[in-house]
Amino acid sequence: MKNLNINFSGIDWLPDEEMEQFTDEAFFACDTLLKGNGPGSEYTGWVDLPEYYDREEFERIRAAASKIRRESQVLIVCGIGGSYLGAAAALDFLKGTMHNLKIRGGADPDEMEIYFVGNNLSPSYIGDIIDITGDRDFSLNVISKSGTTMETAAAFRIFRKILEDRYGEAAAERIYVTTDRSRGALKALAEKEGYETFVIPDNIGGRYSVLTAAGLLPIAAAGCDIDDLMAGAASMREELLSEPGELNEAIGYAGLRQQLYDWDKYIELFVSYDPDLKLFGEWLKQLFGESEGKENLGIFPASVSYTTDLHSLGQMVQEGERFFFETVINVESEPEHILIPEFENDFDGLKYLEGRPVGMLNQTAVDGVAMAHMDGDVPQVYIGIPDKSEFTLGELFYFFEFTCGVSAYVEGVNPFDQPGVEAYKKSIRELLDKYRK
Amino acid sequence: MKNLNINFSGIDWLPDEEMEQFTDEAFFACDTLLKGNGPGSEYTGWVDLPEYYDREEFERIRAAASKIRRESQVLIVCGIGGSYLGAAAALDFLKGTMHNLKIRGGADPDEMEIYFVGNNLSPSYIGDIIDITGDRDFSLNVISKSGTTMETAAAFRIFRKILEDRYGEAAAERIYVTTDRSRGALKALAEKEGYETFVIPDNIGGRYSVLTAAGLLPIAAAGCDIDDLMAGAASMREELLSEPGELNEAIGYAGLRQQLYDWDKYIELFVSYDPDLKLFGEWLKQLFGESEGKENLGIFPASVSYTTDLHSLGQMVQEGERFFFETVINVESEPEHILIPEFENDFDGLKYLEGRPVGMLNQTAVDGVAMAHMDGDVPQVYIGIPDKSEFTLGELFYFFEFTCGVSAYVEGVNPFDQPGVEAYKKSIRELLDKYRK
Repeated sequence: MKNLNINFSGIDWLPDEEMEQFTDEAFFACDTLLKGNGPGSEYTGWVDLPEYYDREEFERIRAAASKIRRESQVLIVCGIGGSYLGAAAALDFLKGTMHNLKIRGGADPDEMEIYFVGNNLSPSYIGDIIDITGDRDFSLNVISKSGTTMETAAAFRIFRKILEDRYGEAAAERIYVTTDRSRGALKALAEKEGYETFVIPDNIGGRYSVLTAAGLLPIAAAGCDIDDLMAGAASMREELLSEPGELNEAIGYAGLRQQLYDWDKYIELFVSYDPDLKLFGEWLKQLFGESEGKENLGIFPASVSYTTDLHSLGQMVQEGERFFFETVINVESEPEHILIPEFENDFDGLKYLEGRPVGMLNQTAVDGVAMAHMDGDVPQVYIGIPDKSEFTLGELFYFFEFTCGVSAYVEGVNPFDQPGVEAYKKSIRELLDKYRK
Repeated sequence: MKNLNINFSGIDWLPDEEMEQFTDEAFFACDTLLKGNGPGSEYTGWVDLPEYYDREEFERIRAAASKIRRESQVLIVCGIGGSYLGAAAALDFLKGTMHNLKIRGGADPDEMEIYFVGNNLSPSYIGDIIDITGDRDFSLNVISKSGTTMETAAAFRIFRKILEDRYGEAAAERIYVTTDRSRGALKALAEKEGYETFVIPDNIGGRYSVLTAAGLLPIAAAGCDIDDLMAGAASMREELLSEPGELNEAIGYAGLRQQLYDWDKYIELFVSYDPDLKLFGEWLKQLFGESEGKENLGIFPASVSYTTDLHSLGQMVQEGERFFFETVINVESEPEHILIPEFENDFDGLKYLEGRPVGMLNQTAVDGVAMAHMDGDVPQVYIGIPDKSEFTLGELFYFFEFTCGVSAYVEGVNPFDQPGVEAYKKSIRELLDKYRK
């Protein structure tokens, strides 16, 4: 890989013949994915998206983002699952988890606060966002393929009402709809009310949609460079499609994952050492969990933020049931200006580290934990990234989407459906039926 | 239970004879815990703490909290693991996840922002907290038994330096130390510098320490009622110690957990439907993971926030490997003022719910998901709580601590040690040795 530093040396204890078998299966699965002859192949539009996206819409996204930034202090993004996790993960990755807190303190009046609603039914949560928005100018981006998903529809009603009460007919100019190209409740409403609309393509499912308007509009509205994001994804696509054989790390990683699963490693821990990557871990959990968790199969995807969680789950990872493997995503360059300060006495035993950057300690932790966990029979895939830039994030999104598609085909399931998500929705609808007249 | 509504009906498919066996084992384990004749019994000080805590120190905590609130706009709490998770979970539970964001917007000048540092080595994170604090008045509470834990020691140095540069000798009056009664680096420093100190008792380990000064000072500084918190814990203690036989739900729950584990339910999902309980889930992950994850054993504790995560992990929970059971903690009363607003047209199919509280939809989701998941062979323990009050939280803390102690004894391990946490620390120290002169 040119930019990502991927290293499988933490798993070299696996027997060669099995390694080969799973690599072969992963090659075959990759072929299935790219030829489009596997189950769910009608949802592989994300494979070519970074190269062949709609340039005209891309410009409209950019223009809409500028308009939102001009007109509003706050953007409310209303969506659930794939219609929120990608954008939310991107904003934490690119702007930091404290983004809204910093702006709210007046750090930079040109910056925009962004809040995600419609991803739960908690009135406490919704009430808090209403309070925080207060009487400030805001815009609303609602993201839903159908427009009838309960969580998103409920929150959209609430914030649409606030906008209409406040701005009257002009509210329509503050509402941006990302939905199906031609069908569905939201599409119909947008046409009636004159909202600007963006498209979630038919051939891309929710959890693969971060590089469509579903992710791009909120990311652009936050002031991030979506050209660089797409360029990173395109670069990764180029690498993965052109590199044959063992050079393709996505194939290698996908094969390894399934091989480890075959060896009763039931739980994959996505590890980061930077809280700004926590939500990226949540995005990974949806991507892999929803793609692979079916037919009574699937590696359970969990995420941990080290070194924090070494003081909670660390004991179990080190010495509990041996069903873990780890995939570390490590930002290899860190801010250098936060140093261990000097004091007269060595009151805490850290005097020998005075003047050293805290980031150096963090990178040492990455290495030390790898040693300790491999000693403890926890295999580790290492993915080093150079920075928290848009380009790198684009690479990461694409790399994991590709890995996941291949991996699910190795597992033998459809990577692109989610039949089990209907069950709870159906139960809720039945329970709510009593309110119908 | 008087206040907690605990219901095991979601697991009634288990065979009676096995049920009995594990209940018997849990009784025996409870006996071991209370008689103090099991491994780790020197760390069971938490059992009687809610009744027999140090009243004099409690008053000093209250006084210190008032002083902090008078003198500072921001409190920086420096700790890791048990020295941060309990307080952080409590603040989200009692004040909401948006607490700092709301205050920062000027909602209430009497309220205090609280940030947790020293729980990671991320310079991005530490830098953000420095930026957010800015030149505002702040106080510092450092919490560490030894005072030499790397993460906490590094952050303490950084914020101590800022305080000393800003206030000179008066900085000492803004530093509050929670540490060992008589030993350790922090205790020595505090005596030398004249910092006010509070005690982490010798017979209480980190993950059981939330009701000691480790948790109480930050919670009190946030303006929460620590009397009510202790009263809730005392009330739960009273119930658990006085109720014999099957009436004691902690024993029942502990036995059930181990029984489910015996039936290859390897993963316990702690479920909430309110984002304010997310960090409580993290506290549970430390409590159970560190207590039970040893000797190649232990249920893996994960937490999910529904309905959000039904759109990420929901598919896998419904149809993936059948290794899940769920423990739902549900706030049964929710704000009633957030309603589904009315619109002229039924554009989203929700017209029949107009005027209904969103909280009602959330509670319907609790029921609907229970139905769907039990259909999908995911057993469910239900714990309903009446509110997000201090009293209720005290009950919850104690209930889960007690359950965990009993459950780990049923599993056959020491619930109160964490031998595996040393491994990574040792590796890091070795790697850092090159910086010693």
